[in-house]
Amino acid sequence: MSAPEITIRLPDWLLARHDEILSSTYASNDARMALAIELALENIKHATGGPFGAAVFDQKSGQPIAVGVNLVPSTGQSCLHGEVVALAMAHAALGQRDLSDPRLQLATSAEPCTMCLGAIHWAGIRSILIGAHDDDVRAIGFDEGHKPNDWRAAFGRAGIEVIEGVRRAEAAAVLQAYRADGGEIYNAQQAKR
Amino acid sequence: MSAPEITIRLPDWLLARHDEILSSTYASNDARMALAIELALENIKHATGGPFGAAVFDQKSGQPIAVGVNLVPSTGQSCLHGEVVALAMAHAALGQRDLSDPRLQLATSAEPCTMCLGAIHWAGIRSILIGAHDDDVRAIGFDEGHKPNDWRAAFGRAGIEVIEGVRRAEAAAVLQAYRADGGEIYNAQQAKR
Repeated sequence: MSAPEITIRLPDWLLARHDEILSSTYASNDARMALAIELALENIKHATGGPFGAAVFDQKSGQPIAVGVNLVPSTGQSCLHGEVVALAMAHAALGQRDLSDPRLQLATSAEPCTMCLGAIHWAGIRSILIGAHDDDVRAIGFDEGHKPNDWRAAFGRAGIEVIEGVRRAEAAAVLQAYRADGGEIYNAQQAKR
Repeated sequence: MSAPEITIRLPDWLLARHDEILSSTYASNDARMALAIELALENIKHATGGPFGAAVFDQKSGQPIAVGVNLVPSTGQSCLHGEVVALAMAHAALGQRDLSDPRLQLATSAEPCTMCLGAIHWAGIRSILIGAHDDDVRAIGFDEGHKPNDWRAAFGRAGIEVIEGVRRAEAAAVLQAYRADGGEIYNAQQAKR
């Protein structure tokens, strides 16, 4: 009955490539999104989680500070979305809770859910790049829950830049591939159905 | 440059009491909230995090499955709110991602922020007990960010029971004590101010 310890760890395939990725340069929004999508795709291929990838970049150098992938199905931890993992890794890598340095940008292969919008708020990240649209995520069966309709305006007021639809078709194709491959659509509240 | 591993661990004072707490019975909503508030208060006293405590209970037995406290200031991990920690511990303790068994209930010493509302959605918890109101949290200076105004209605539609204002004055007093004691109000986006 002693308390569990929960370790958030990147999958082996990503650890094997971690140094290579973090020493590479991703100069454009397009290049940064390509990495987030590649992480999502590799995460499916290796069956290490849901079809979502994310990375935190230093916009000045173009280098990633941290990368993350969805770990929900592999860990049973429902909050380990790609964005949460990437932000957690960025906090640890930089040794700081506040990621509001304007050089930092989060790229995510799909539009954040409500939880991840909140995580972005608390981390303080001031620029986000989004690939697939919320509709693309819901299209494969994920119940994204209730989201504030006006989250974009609220982020705007808070000074958080939102750049959407970067490589959307490619990002949506990864979601479709996950479903076609029989990937787990780990919705909440399945027990009551 | 190798990837960090992030371990979520309860503070020593809580580990020391963990078995005692988990083998106790909290039969009423009032008793469950008293535990969440006590955890918040002890977390301040031991300077191990923000003024927030939470626990997941088996409503049938009245025993806690898992407990959590806010770990943000002590870990630099912005997502480690009390609710997130308690839910993560519950996933680990039960070995399951889906917490939608109607016996399970989350008690939290203060109204969940947007991130935690999302975390509750994904965990699938179907009953939540809330102590302090969102206004009480904002009153001590926390920027809770943008929250859907109609989250209660959305939770209702999703079949999530929300019981509010349990021991609210006592829960709010813990928040006030944290501020009076000079506790860190770890808002997002401090760098830009």
